Amino acid sequence: MTTGPVLRRTADGRELRYFDDEPRGRAYDAVDTRDLPPLSSTSELRLDPLLDEWVAVAGHRQDRTFLPPADQCPLCPSRDGRQSEIAEPAYDVVVFDNRFPALGTSAQVQVCAPLPLAQDAAALLAVPSRGFAEVVVPTDDHLQTTADLPPARLRTLVDVWAQRTEALGARPGVRAVAVFENRGEAVGVTLSHTHQQIYAYPFVPPRLGQVLRASAAHRERTGGCLVEDRLAVERADGQRIVLAGQAWTVLVPHAARWPFELHVVPHRHVRALPELAEDERDELAALWGEVFRRYDALPAAQGAPLPTIAAWVQPPVGAVEGHLYAQVFSLARAPGKLKSLAGSESAYGAWVTDTTPEATAQALRDAG
Amino acid sequence: MTTGPVLRRTADGRELRYFDDEPRGRAYDAVDTRDLPPLSSTSELRLDPLLDEWVAVAGHRQDRTFLPPADQCPLCPSRDGRQSEIAEPAYDVVVFDNRFPALGTSAQVQVCAPLPLAQDAAALLAVPSRGFAEVVVPTDDHLQTTADLPPARLRTLVDVWAQRTEALGARPGVRAVAVFENRGEAVGVTLSHTHQQIYAYPFVPPRLGQVLRASAAHRERTGGCLVEDRLAVERADGQRIVLAGQAWTVLVPHAARWPFELHVVPHRHVRALPELAEDERDELAALWGEVFRRYDALPAAQGAPLPTIAAWVQPPVGAVEGHLYAQVFSLARAPGKLKSLAGSESAYGAWVTDTTPEATAQALRDAG
Repeated sequence: MTTGPVLRRTADGRELRYFDDEPRGRAYDAVDTRDLPPLSSTSELRLDPLLDEWVAVAGHRQDRTFLPPADQCPLCPSRDGRQSEIAEPAYDVVVFDNRFPALGTSAQVQVCAPLPLAQDAAALLAVPSRGFAEVVVPTDDHLQTTADLPPARLRTLVDVWAQRTEALGARPGVRAVAVFENRGEAVGVTLSHTHQQIYAYPFVPPRLGQVLRASAAHRERTGGCLVEDRLAVERADGQRIVLAGQAWTVLVPHAARWPFELHVVPHRHVRALPELAEDERDELAALWGEVFRRYDALPAAQGAPLPTIAAWVQPPVGAVEGHLYAQVFSLARAPGKLKSLAGSESAYGAWVTDTTPEATAQALRDAG
Repeated sequence: MTTGPVLRRTADGRELRYFDDEPRGRAYDAVDTRDLPPLSSTSELRLDPLLDEWVAVAGHRQDRTFLPPADQCPLCPSRDGRQSEIAEPAYDVVVFDNRFPALGTSAQVQVCAPLPLAQDAAALLAVPSRGFAEVVVPTDDHLQTTADLPPARLRTLVDVWAQRTEALGARPGVRAVAVFENRGEAVGVTLSHTHQQIYAYPFVPPRLGQVLRASAAHRERTGGCLVEDRLAVERADGQRIVLAGQAWTVLVPHAARWPFELHVVPHRHVRALPELAEDERDELAALWGEVFRRYDALPAAQGAPLPTIAAWVQPPVGAVEGHLYAQVFSLARAPGKLKSLAGSESAYGAWVTDTTPEATAQALRDAG
């Protein structure tokens, strides 16, 4: 049973929350005394009128910490006189505001001003960045990966994701909450200590908008939920199922784009992480670790973890349509062999894949 | 003045066309006598119902030629007893059907059957692949890059792109013609001999659909063309202009996503390449070579060409809306330093960039 969170602040005023697997009687009285410069950001959101999408231009992120040695890791606990981002000498799960956020920060305000509507799409529209970007650190062990986390910790993590989704989604101006984990330098990870990220976007991210539109069209036509109806078709077909639980199914989607792409889908019509029941959270915690252990056991991984992205798809704040699922995939078919995003994908958005989803599903079943 | 094309066929029946810079009196009587296996493909188009996008699953492409040594290059002329894809011992520009197409092939038919409409989005929808994928080889010199092509050749190339756009767009079932060049192994290029590709999609590629929708909304609101009106705003602002011609402007867009992203935009309201007038083609040929020379001269390139994508954005066949432009960008900020597509970009479609478009424009002006 997760306990917490206990709210503290970093030396420069950012929010930091401790969550424990069980009551541990910690005082959380360690104080962050680092002499940090005040937070400042010149980052902007700019509207790309041709695609009608907001782009975050975050020039200050060029200064962010890049792959520091383990003894300077900002996500490790503060010990032996060295202070990291996390003041305590031990912790279960910590969530704090990113010091170099792609979006905004909670240091000053918990309101994210709504974005302006383009009165004239041809005009140059830019606003100071807003929204929230949090870092989730699920272990104080620098070397532990998601595949290594004990079951109780994974269970806490599910609660943490749900709690942050609810808390950030309730802040004014937030349109969507994204929970995701980037793993590997090929995915642009700048800190090797395992962590997830939570972005509270002040706009509906484009991919999420697409899923919502397709779901609304399906609802209009059939009265059903697209994700749920598709899940039933995939379960009946069976060829691409990797793990079949009581409350969840893990499958390779029929039109997978990425290497080793998986969808993790709850059977019940749950829209977002906070709605998950206790038994659904229990099974998810177990499945989640298994998914990453399967990735690590793939022959393609050759002993080196594949660069992976795991991302929860939750409907925008206030949307009626939507069914929760996680999308997990690799950017590489093997270590160092990245999936190429060539002209068809990058410029036109039309995907060409050289592997069949059925072969991918077989490989992930065999990795069990 | 371009002459041609002269139509020939490869040993396995694919179309191959020769275009010359000027009349050269060649007979084009070299015959491709290679013992090639019959063309076969198990590739499919599958509809991803959650994003409402077609995905090409082209398993046969795993067998395609991968970075052969120069003396086995399939895009070099056939000489000294060795036969390549191109039977002639010399050529200016050749266009032929890809032997390992991501889409269909013209070997048998010149009709691309229309795609079915999804009656039930939850059902598994897959059809044999269709459409056309051509390779454009703009030089018989294995080492020449686009930056090295002489002005007359670049001028021919513009005519070739226009001619193929028109010819492929006229084939039944083709919804959009894409002309693009991938450069560099990081972009997945499997043949180092300089070439472009032309895809005739049997569907409207997602990015193109987005541009069209935004343009239609702008037209509805203001009566104007979005690309043209935005160009006027960028020219008036001036900060991101890289090259200013009589008929074309080369600029870094205000909300650029990719490293060193450029748009190459005609001033006149031209919808697609075939509509370009002679003087516009002349200036484009000169600007196009200059764009690539600028990329190669960037300090970030460090003497090794950056991996780049250059892609023409042309409206779908039969669309009323649309204004031609080319999007040119790099996948890397420096050789070996790829732009990371992490969770926000890959899973949610929301872009975060660490460089400002104004700094990019300055770097590309300084590279002149």
